[in-house]
Amino acid sequence: LGCFFMHIAMIGDRIVPAEQVDSVYFDRGTFFGDGVYEVLRSYDGRLFALDEHLERFANSLSAVGITGLDIDTIRGRILQAVDAAGIPNAKIYFHVTRGSEPRSRVADSALKPNFFLTVGEVGDNTEEKTTGIAVSTFPDWRWRRCDIKSLNLLANVLASTDAAKKGCGEAILVDEAGFITEGAGSAFFAIFGDTLRTAPLTANILSSITRKFVLEAARNIGLEVVEESLKPTEAVEADELLIAATTRDIVPAVKFDDRVIADGKPGEKVKSIARQFRSYTG
Amino acid sequence: LGCFFMHIAMIGDRIVPAEQVDSVYFDRGTFFGDGVYEVLRSYDGRLFALDEHLERFANSLSAVGITGLDIDTIRGRILQAVDAAGIPNAKIYFHVTRGSEPRSRVADSALKPNFFLTVGEVGDNTEEKTTGIAVSTFPDWRWRRCDIKSLNLLANVLASTDAAKKGCGEAILVDEAGFITEGAGSAFFAIFGDTLRTAPLTANILSSITRKFVLEAARNIGLEVVEESLKPTEAVEADELLIAATTRDIVPAVKFDDRVIADGKPGEKVKSIARQFRSYTG
Repeated sequence: LGCFFMHIAMIGDRIVPAEQVDSVYFDRGTFFGDGVYEVLRSYDGRLFALDEHLERFANSLSAVGITGLDIDTIRGRILQAVDAAGIPNAKIYFHVTRGSEPRSRVADSALKPNFFLTVGEVGDNTEEKTTGIAVSTFPDWRWRRCDIKSLNLLANVLASTDAAKKGCGEAILVDEAGFITEGAGSAFFAIFGDTLRTAPLTANILSSITRKFVLEAARNIGLEVVEESLKPTEAVEADELLIAATTRDIVPAVKFDDRVIADGKPGEKVKSIARQFRSYTG
Repeated sequence: LGCFFMHIAMIGDRIVPAEQVDSVYFDRGTFFGDGVYEVLRSYDGRLFALDEHLERFANSLSAVGITGLDIDTIRGRILQAVDAAGIPNAKIYFHVTRGSEPRSRVADSALKPNFFLTVGEVGDNTEEKTTGIAVSTFPDWRWRRCDIKSLNLLANVLASTDAAKKGCGEAILVDEAGFITEGAGSAFFAIFGDTLRTAPLTANILSSITRKFVLEAARNIGLEVVEESLKPTEAVEADELLIAATTRDIVPAVKFDDRVIADGKPGEKVKSIARQFRSYTG
């Protein structure tokens, strides 16, 4: 680690000469959120949508200009780690950052990227799937390139924390024009009659992989899919609401900012979509 | 470090049991950019505007709801580190993140924050002060709360990298409405006759400490200060342009997106502002 111009560091209350500090402390992921990530899972030992996640990850790396780690290497590491963990229903998180060096906005072009991955168990969320969750709105403070799955997630953290304080299971983000973009960690959908509505994929929306499967499932059960943003005032009038995320699957939302949706119970169409979805993952 | 649900991690190509991974790898600063930072400097052994930086830092901590580390403790650590480094013209960087734990958007409320600080030498930028720099515009992709000095800086990295590729010394950010907000790592000002113009402080602008001193200096040399956003088409017509940042002081901009400003040399008013500014720091 080249430390020109840098003499000492302090970790907590401890002073350390800069050259003795582990390079992980100089990760551009921490200084700038200069990295991209993915979360995927397995069902009963089978990884779900690995190719889709790797394709999106390649797009994210390319969009921020991080090079030096090819997708096949990453695929190999995922398989190796999943194999080593031996967990049937595993949640795999991984990120790549631009690398470690003394803090400077413009990176050294020779920098080597850092790779970090964890494998754990997917938590059981049967209850929220069965009874549904309450959701609450929060301003969409995220950056303008939410199509890139980057480590800049403070806006998501603040929104999710606000929702948790209100006893809600997800924050639904609302942009400056008053439209719902998506959940802080999920895609968001509303069902009106035989129509499923969700925001179109723009620079403000993550190209959610679970979203893709929800749209497919919705069409399969005979719903018309309309990709058009909606406002909270419209969402509360929906027949059914749902969120979708890799580690949570399909979760009905039965309360929206204190307004009970329909009769306050998960509806039949959400249940059908969830059943269809399970046929993809099972 | 509680690692429930997490079994193994992978650092680069190396598999490690989760409980053996140093907690710095689980820093929410890396997972989410869930932290805030400051950069300050000393001139000939005297810290400049320490109180202002600490006040802004306290505001940032409060805005993101990070508690558990008081400002007096941080002040003490800065003084201790600066003393230990013994560098007359020192650049001090520090950040506080919400802490380390297995990745989850909503943090454990008992989490202890992480503190990291570096002290190095301020690089010599006499040349850019004397001859001026070229600047180039880039879309302002940052989040909606740039008044908070957070670790979510990927938009700034991408903008600065683009500027560097074009041979420019700073990226000037332009919002969706076509107005200049600020530089990727600086405040931005234009001089028209006897008027100094800069964007007003809103949620999209960092409350720059150097900016405050530039406004004071400008008034002291008889300029009228107008806090009103301007467009690139107006900026290129200015008599003089300048950027201001803690580690760079006052730097004239003599080229803006390939348009030469006035005669392409730093103007008299920028020089006067820089002289005034030196009287504050000296």
